[in-house]
Amino acid sequence: MRDAFHEDLDSINQTLVEMSTLVAGAMGRATTALLTANLELAEEVIADDDRVDAIQHELDNKTLEVMARQQPVASDLRNLVTSLRMSADFERMGDFAHHAARIARMRYPNTAVPAELTSTIQAMGDCAVALITKVTGLLQSRDIEVALEVERDDDEMDRLHRKLFEVLLDDSWSHGIETAIDMTLLGRYYERCADHAVSVSRRVYFLVTGEYAEKQS
Amino acid sequence: MRDAFHEDLDSINQTLVEMSTLVAGAMGRATTALLTANLELAEEVIADDDRVDAIQHELDNKTLEVMARQQPVASDLRNLVTSLRMSADFERMGDFAHHAARIARMRYPNTAVPAELTSTIQAMGDCAVALITKVTGLLQSRDIEVALEVERDDDEMDRLHRKLFEVLLDDSWSHGIETAIDMTLLGRYYERCADHAVSVSRRVYFLVTGEYAEKQS
Repeated sequence: MRDAFHEDLDSINQTLVEMSTLVAGAMGRATTALLTANLELAEEVIADDDRVDAIQHELDNKTLEVMARQQPVASDLRNLVTSLRMSADFERMGDFAHHAARIARMRYPNTAVPAELTSTIQAMGDCAVALITKVTGLLQSRDIEVALEVERDDDEMDRLHRKLFEVLLDDSWSHGIETAIDMTLLGRYYERCADHAVSVSRRVYFLVTGEYAEKQS
Repeated sequence: MRDAFHEDLDSINQTLVEMSTLVAGAMGRATTALLTANLELAEEVIADDDRVDAIQHELDNKTLEVMARQQPVASDLRNLVTSLRMSADFERMGDFAHHAARIARMRYPNTAVPAELTSTIQAMGDCAVALITKVTGLLQSRDIEVALEVERDDDEMDRLHRKLFEVLLDDSWSHGIETAIDMTLLGRYYERCADHAVSVSRRVYFLVTGEYAEKQS
């Protein structure tokens, strides 16, 4: 049987799982909106970000309330503080989906992403969604092997990010400065989103092992 | 006379002042490094970022230790949790100075910023330093009028950010895609750094008033 405090922790963790699931969905839809000039989808992602923000706000209040009521120490306290940090990570990941969707909306009815970059942006979107989905599972399983996998999978995002710049800097680039600016910002959104996924997975690793994860390669 | 808990709070606040001061200095030097191709200065900013990270790490451990030892509730608890968030803001602001300095280093011996953008980047750097310096004072004075000023001053950063894009998108832009990418990222670093300064000032406002600041204009 679980005591009240552990029920609180479970409920907080469940809300983090919900945030992670929402953010993975938002990133997937933002990518589709970018690649298919889907205005409706872009608007949906933009509106949904308010939901992520509201959940964070509520979760942080609840976490503070549990801290005040339960007066946790040691690992219980660390767990709650880490929840606050994770909710901030997910809130920020939601922002990046929002920013990406805004680029799709701004360029509508045109497709924001030129043909040469379709496959790279699709791959960055898929990579982000896969990373966040893994993090969602990790929050539930606390399997540190998965935390280490997330770290390794982020290398793929870095590789795609470099590839994006290669295309932008190639002499054959014919889409001008405005699209190059869009793609530079977009690349950064995906990369930063993946960084926050890694950050969550490192926090789980630390909670489970009490140690910081070594960089995997 | 202050009790042990309030001495802890003072000491934590003093460390936040120290972080803020370091970050303002780093942003100022990063800007100079960018505008004058000063490799030594760029290297200094990059190395100093480790110091900011180390201070954050130590401060967060101390804050957790105070939480566990003093078992604060209500406003005292909120104060400590807010300190954790502020230290994360400053750590991130330090990252942006670091990123800016890396652009200076990457383009050395050339000047990273082309002549058309010298005044805009200088103004963005000055604006960032002014904002962070105001935040440093705010941490000491807790004067909510200053918190509202920070919010207003950030509008100037947004104006400069838009001006940067105007120059990049002007038909006369002759510096190609690579420099446009550098300037896009650089503009974002300054703007995000200012956002975090606003975020700290909002946190102070909330601690003092118990209410969220309305957007100033």
